[in-house]
Amino acid sequence: MIHNQTIDNQLNHRTIRAFKDQQLSADQLATLYAAASHTSTSMFMQQFSILHLTDPQLRQAVRDISGQPYVGANGDLLIFVVDLYRNQQIRQQMGNDDGRLHTTDIFMQAVEDTVLALQNTLVAAESMGLGGVILGSIKNDPARLVKVLSLPKMTMPLLGLQVGIPDQQPQLKPRLPLDFVAFDNAYPTDFNVHDLADYDQRVHQYYDLRDANRRVDTFTNQINGAKLNLGDPDQRDELAKVLQEQGLALDWK
Amino acid sequence: MIHNQTIDNQLNHRTIRAFKDQQLSADQLATLYAAASHTSTSMFMQQFSILHLTDPQLRQAVRDISGQPYVGANGDLLIFVVDLYRNQQIRQQMGNDDGRLHTTDIFMQAVEDTVLALQNTLVAAESMGLGGVILGSIKNDPARLVKVLSLPKMTMPLLGLQVGIPDQQPQLKPRLPLDFVAFDNAYPTDFNVHDLADYDQRVHQYYDLRDANRRVDTFTNQINGAKLNLGDPDQRDELAKVLQEQGLALDWK
Repeated sequence: MIHNQTIDNQLNHRTIRAFKDQQLSADQLATLYAAASHTSTSMFMQQFSILHLTDPQLRQAVRDISGQPYVGANGDLLIFVVDLYRNQQIRQQMGNDDGRLHTTDIFMQAVEDTVLALQNTLVAAESMGLGGVILGSIKNDPARLVKVLSLPKMTMPLLGLQVGIPDQQPQLKPRLPLDFVAFDNAYPTDFNVHDLADYDQRVHQYYDLRDANRRVDTFTNQINGAKLNLGDPDQRDELAKVLQEQGLALDWK
Repeated sequence: MIHNQTIDNQLNHRTIRAFKDQQLSADQLATLYAAASHTSTSMFMQQFSILHLTDPQLRQAVRDISGQPYVGANGDLLIFVVDLYRNQQIRQQMGNDDGRLHTTDIFMQAVEDTVLALQNTLVAAESMGLGGVILGSIKNDPARLVKVLSLPKMTMPLLGLQVGIPDQQPQLKPRLPLDFVAFDNAYPTDFNVHDLADYDQRVHQYYDLRDANRRVDTFTNQINGAKLNLGDPDQRDELAKVLQEQGLALDWK
């Protein structure tokens, strides 16, 4: 294994959900934005934006959608937005049609731009000693989120990032062994769940150490359980509908 | 601006497309995989995989799809795969149904996992003095790519990463000013294309310096032009269809 400060930070990545009661400095925020902005972008189209929520009512509204008490609590809350509005405006104001902006292909490129920039932002934050949690829970009610944030068509809030000064020191969460994740040339379809027994044991131990009072689980039990079980349809199932209401990926039938 | 080695590397990011004729060492590759593996993952579901293509025929086939001569040429070629197959297998082998694995919601979570891991891999590579280019062009023909890589249903190759020892020193490509990308609380819908005149001038100068013999362009002209113009439908427009053939996002109507 090769080591340097960047890689050591990456290998020590923990999700931080508890932050000290202190906002990022202007300098810290500007640095995070700069890192996001210098990320690779598909075909140089730069199809993402960042909303920094400082307004207490907005933060409360996003917390309500997410259902997670730490969202919009201590620390700074950034919303990473898939943004095809800007490029649509460029084309329309230059007298052109919308071209391929409503295709699944361009939508996915914008999603990729947005997520690449998010990860670069988190890496920058962690390199400064800050911590963060990526918030998929903002999509618990996509239509309400779009409305709360007053976002125009051709945009879609994809993920949040709550970032700040860590106020907890979680254990490192064990990841799948690389044998199950990285392959040479051929994807192995002969996966056998029993081969994950050792890994399951390590995940079990991780949860046991984290909170001895809670029910302890393995990786395979989680995948086999509530995380992926079919339940009653809820607002998370409206994502595709809301995307199309936003004018995105209209060719997806 | 705050500076450290990680951030300075991020701010100096250039896409590298020309590599020396030397493969990554086993140590370098293991380090990249470790960085990928330690990336944040939605709901701890770890829904991505990496295919490392060393086989010359496979590399040629992906190069043909991408239409870019540097793909699968010098350096190492990694394909980042949205992977719901592994978790489907876990559930099926444990006697369960597929649950929510075929929903748009879970597909998008897997896409996010995949792209987060890709950016972390690129950051790790750049921190070691390597360079890389993210390859959206592998999706030029999604059905053919799935076939070439013999990928099972519930997987989808999303992006490539060609990585190696840089054999070029490109200029830094100017990004949109942050005024157009990062906002407090409210997304501004009063975008005016004329406000990009200064930025256009800097992009123009960048291309002029890069290659004085080629037609020089601005950002707005690119967005207003071929990158987003409607053309005859091609295989890139089959993405949604191929995703559904792969069993993904079946609730997207």
